[in-house]
Amino acid sequence: MEQFLRAAAIFQSLSQTDLMPIANASKKTTHPANTPLFAERDPATHFFLVISGSVRLYRLTPDGKEKVIEIIRAGETFAESVALLDKPYPVYANTIDSTEMIRIPAAAIRNLMAQNTGLSLKMLASLSLRVHKFINDIHTLSMSSAQQKVAGYFLAFISDDKTEQRIELPSKKSIVASRLGLQPETFSRVLGKMKERGVIYEDGPEIVVLQPEKLRELRDSA
Amino acid sequence: MEQFLRAAAIFQSLSQTDLMPIANASKKTTHPANTPLFAERDPATHFFLVISGSVRLYRLTPDGKEKVIEIIRAGETFAESVALLDKPYPVYANTIDSTEMIRIPAAAIRNLMAQNTGLSLKMLASLSLRVHKFINDIHTLSMSSAQQKVAGYFLAFISDDKTEQRIELPSKKSIVASRLGLQPETFSRVLGKMKERGVIYEDGPEIVVLQPEKLRELRDSA
Repeated sequence: MEQFLRAAAIFQSLSQTDLMPIANASKKTTHPANTPLFAERDPATHFFLVISGSVRLYRLTPDGKEKVIEIIRAGETFAESVALLDKPYPVYANTIDSTEMIRIPAAAIRNLMAQNTGLSLKMLASLSLRVHKFINDIHTLSMSSAQQKVAGYFLAFISDDKTEQRIELPSKKSIVASRLGLQPETFSRVLGKMKERGVIYEDGPEIVVLQPEKLRELRDSA
Repeated sequence: MEQFLRAAAIFQSLSQTDLMPIANASKKTTHPANTPLFAERDPATHFFLVISGSVRLYRLTPDGKEKVIEIIRAGETFAESVALLDKPYPVYANTIDSTEMIRIPAAAIRNLMAQNTGLSLKMLASLSLRVHKFINDIHTLSMSSAQQKVAGYFLAFISDDKTEQRIELPSKKSIVASRLGLQPETFSRVLGKMKERGVIYEDGPEIVVLQPEKLRELRDSA
């Protein structure tokens, strides 16, 4: 149980000793696909850690259709913010597939936190680290998608067979950037990266593509 | 000061009353570009909220070169996890541009948390919400970058001038997906989205592109 708990961002920095009382208060359960877990406005008595399977959180539209708000996957928790604050659930939750989860009673965690400030500090530190990790991931993803766009744009100008090719951009860089939905600085940073790698160089107003196959790799890379 | 503090993920759910003692303990400072803020292994007495400008966190390589670990931008905090846990800073920090920030003494926050469990719960809830927001953002970004890839791939098969065109994929969908660095399910989801929007339809093993200009939009969209 402790190992599963440590998979959750909120518990990551907790020691075995810190986790034991949480594990003792919690319960592992397995549910078939499409099991209702709670309804909107139910008191948030528990929060949940998904071990395997997945859960959808949804609202109901006035005509009774589901509007999915979030999909929770293995290793993720849900409802912890409302449960810690002793509020009602703001959404419905149903399993999607057959799903294993740990149900963590919020009152037990609140009690442990009141007795043990160190526990709160460690959980805050864990979540802070996770937030930093995500900010980094998002910058990386945005950067890599910017590279894909620029590579795709350049490839549209060149024919496949030659090894070195010249592109005369049809307008100023700032206009090309905005055409691609990029900030001018992001566009410049992508050009800089491509020059650094020897994929292109700039010759006055022209872009010289040294390695078209590298551009293709950049466009198609994950 | 309270308004600035509320911009930080960790303080977002705190009331005016909760924020006041934190604001009173904190200090707003302005630094020119490239000011050292702390060095690796200094005791982490404070954590920081950037109001404007930016900060780089870096390590030094054995030959004395900077290796940037993270760039902190306006509205973001840094060093909160080590400061809350009373550990040494694991990195160096220098301003990049002229930077305004709030310096928050960690001991004051730890004291407030010990006196007031509600404060800890609210900070944990704030960070949990932020983590959920980022998980959603990352899924959206991955999905939109998958759409860009698939659109770019299809565009490579078609000529610009016709309005409706047929593509015979050169191999099974699972192979095309892996060629694009996508999970098969992601590839299917992207095809589903494109069909839903009327951009393509599938005719047996062929993809019929109804709106090549929409594909181009998808490839180039943010």
